[in-house]
Amino acid sequence: MPSVTLKEIAETLGISIATVSKALKGYPDISESTKQRVQELAKSLNYHPNSFAQSLRTQQSNLIGLIIPEIVHHFFANIIQGVIDEAKKEGYLVIVLQSDESYIHEKEQLQLLLEKNVDGILISLSDKTVHYKHVKEVIDAGMPVVLYDKISKSLDCSKIIIDDRGAAKDATTHLILRGCQKIAHISGPLKPQTTIDRYLGYKDALKEHGISFQKELVYTSENLSYEDGYALGEQILIDHPDVDGIFSFTDLVATGALTKIREMGIKIPDQVSIMGFSNWFLARITTPTLSTVDQPGYRMGQEAFKQLCKEIKMTKDQEIILPEIIKIPTKIVQRQSTR
Amino acid sequence: MPSVTLKEIAETLGISIATVSKALKGYPDISESTKQRVQELAKSLNYHPNSFAQSLRTQQSNLIGLIIPEIVHHFFANIIQGVIDEAKKEGYLVIVLQSDESYIHEKEQLQLLLEKNVDGILISLSDKTVHYKHVKEVIDAGMPVVLYDKISKSLDCSKIIIDDRGAAKDATTHLILRGCQKIAHISGPLKPQTTIDRYLGYKDALKEHGISFQKELVYTSENLSYEDGYALGEQILIDHPDVDGIFSFTDLVATGALTKIREMGIKIPDQVSIMGFSNWFLARITTPTLSTVDQPGYRMGQEAFKQLCKEIKMTKDQEIILPEIIKIPTKIVQRQSTR
Repeated sequence: MPSVTLKEIAETLGISIATVSKALKGYPDISESTKQRVQELAKSLNYHPNSFAQSLRTQQSNLIGLIIPEIVHHFFANIIQGVIDEAKKEGYLVIVLQSDESYIHEKEQLQLLLEKNVDGILISLSDKTVHYKHVKEVIDAGMPVVLYDKISKSLDCSKIIIDDRGAAKDATTHLILRGCQKIAHISGPLKPQTTIDRYLGYKDALKEHGISFQKELVYTSENLSYEDGYALGEQILIDHPDVDGIFSFTDLVATGALTKIREMGIKIPDQVSIMGFSNWFLARITTPTLSTVDQPGYRMGQEAFKQLCKEIKMTKDQEIILPEIIKIPTKIVQRQSTR
Repeated sequence: MPSVTLKEIAETLGISIATVSKALKGYPDISESTKQRVQELAKSLNYHPNSFAQSLRTQQSNLIGLIIPEIVHHFFANIIQGVIDEAKKEGYLVIVLQSDESYIHEKEQLQLLLEKNVDGILISLSDKTVHYKHVKEVIDAGMPVVLYDKISKSLDCSKIIIDDRGAAKDATTHLILRGCQKIAHISGPLKPQTTIDRYLGYKDALKEHGISFQKELVYTSENLSYEDGYALGEQILIDHPDVDGIFSFTDLVATGALTKIREMGIKIPDQVSIMGFSNWFLARITTPTLSTVDQPGYRMGQEAFKQLCKEIKMTKDQEIILPEIIKIPTKIVQRQSTR
């Protein structure tokens, strides 16, 4: 390990690691005698002065890239933390990039990471991404790539996912079993697979319980925002005053709907039950608190890194990688917004 | 720029960048003829095959390190985003590390970044850090270091801070001007300078308005949690039923207090006004919504990177860096929890 050697030099000479680093780079504010002592010892220990040289020798950078659509987002922030914690255990550092839900950024960032010679890449696809050639090229080049959360079925690499369809079915079933008979669904734009799957899970639950699906009970939040939920909460109850359950595809939108419906003087959960999806922190502090599906971001981050790390080692050993699909289990968290 | 050259090779030969990268590394699944074509062209263009070699030549990695105490935290997540967005404009990538409020991790991570030859480091000190030798060593080694948010006055480098004392004074003054006469303060453990400054700002405001400071009105949240706020909100009103204002040093704790006090049947803001600090998203969705101090994390991240980038250039040009202290302005956000 390079760090040990740098440390060894410092300890042997009784100087700081920083001074050793500086001396090896030839900084002008280190005395010539110190530079000479450091450089001679480094040479005798066959020490390579920096991680670039080290990397050039081993072709390992011990860096991975993590492309995330949105950093200021409870679920994704948990994923970042899971990845970083797990990477630390294996001696990897993580370059974090935000695609900002932009296909253009995502494409540029993959190239940047390729140039930076990272050992592997974790990526959750942006909602705007509909062509996957840019990812496919990187995979085809032998770079270990693991997709997490927002994936594309057409890409041939390992994927770490939540069983969104099953979880959404559980959430809707929870409403049905607690007596809801007319359940509306707030969905997002049907682009990422996660949103499609949650919509399908809602339909699955209705079907299983003999409730006929009504297209007019499905509403779309275009901006995935609190404000969208606030507006849609009202809209749903104006259009269908007899709706007694709402399943929203994400907590933030559910929170907006819950607030507006409460403000309208409608009792939650007595008259309308509301179910979210994600288990953001905010679900614990709304009035009433929000029942939801716990989507374990931290665990997803850990599993994504573990899989990537495995594939980095296999690539190094020239082993063939057979892509795996790992499903992270979810669970229903019942709070006050459902009966 | 290496990326242009890599792209040039790919375009000239009509193959993908990924194939070029792979060919230059000698991957076995690229045909010998492709390898030869790529390598010959690369040689004729004087192309250096990867970023390690590139870096070795220029001693620039175009990587910076960002050490953050906690990732899953609204304010810090905003800082990460501000840093990454600003770094992108200058062609830098950001390695994100989480110190987890641990001195030991912080120390290890600084060494890791030094080994990785980053061009500069942004660091917010962990709450547990009371000695600064590990940071001082890195600064003394000529590595550009900029402290943000949680700083130490004893370190001689640039600092990006919020005027916590002034902002806390504004927050307390807001309560006083709206008629509060007996104001309690929920503080944190008095270790990070930010917490000390918020406590001092509270005292400043009382003094300026001729209200005598009472030590027994200052409560401490040990865990900086919602649960702490929930317990302390009750405790404050049991100990001092005539308290009519509470200024909490952070929104999360304020939210807990607000929830408990509302549950006790006490009217907010008529009987008790509550003021937070940070302007987390959650302040907008509590019932009633929470008045607070807006602490602009994104802007702080941007300014921190800009200052670091300036210092990286100065270091390269062997210019002398005179540390700067940049204060990011805050503002009071009035919502429903104050009169």
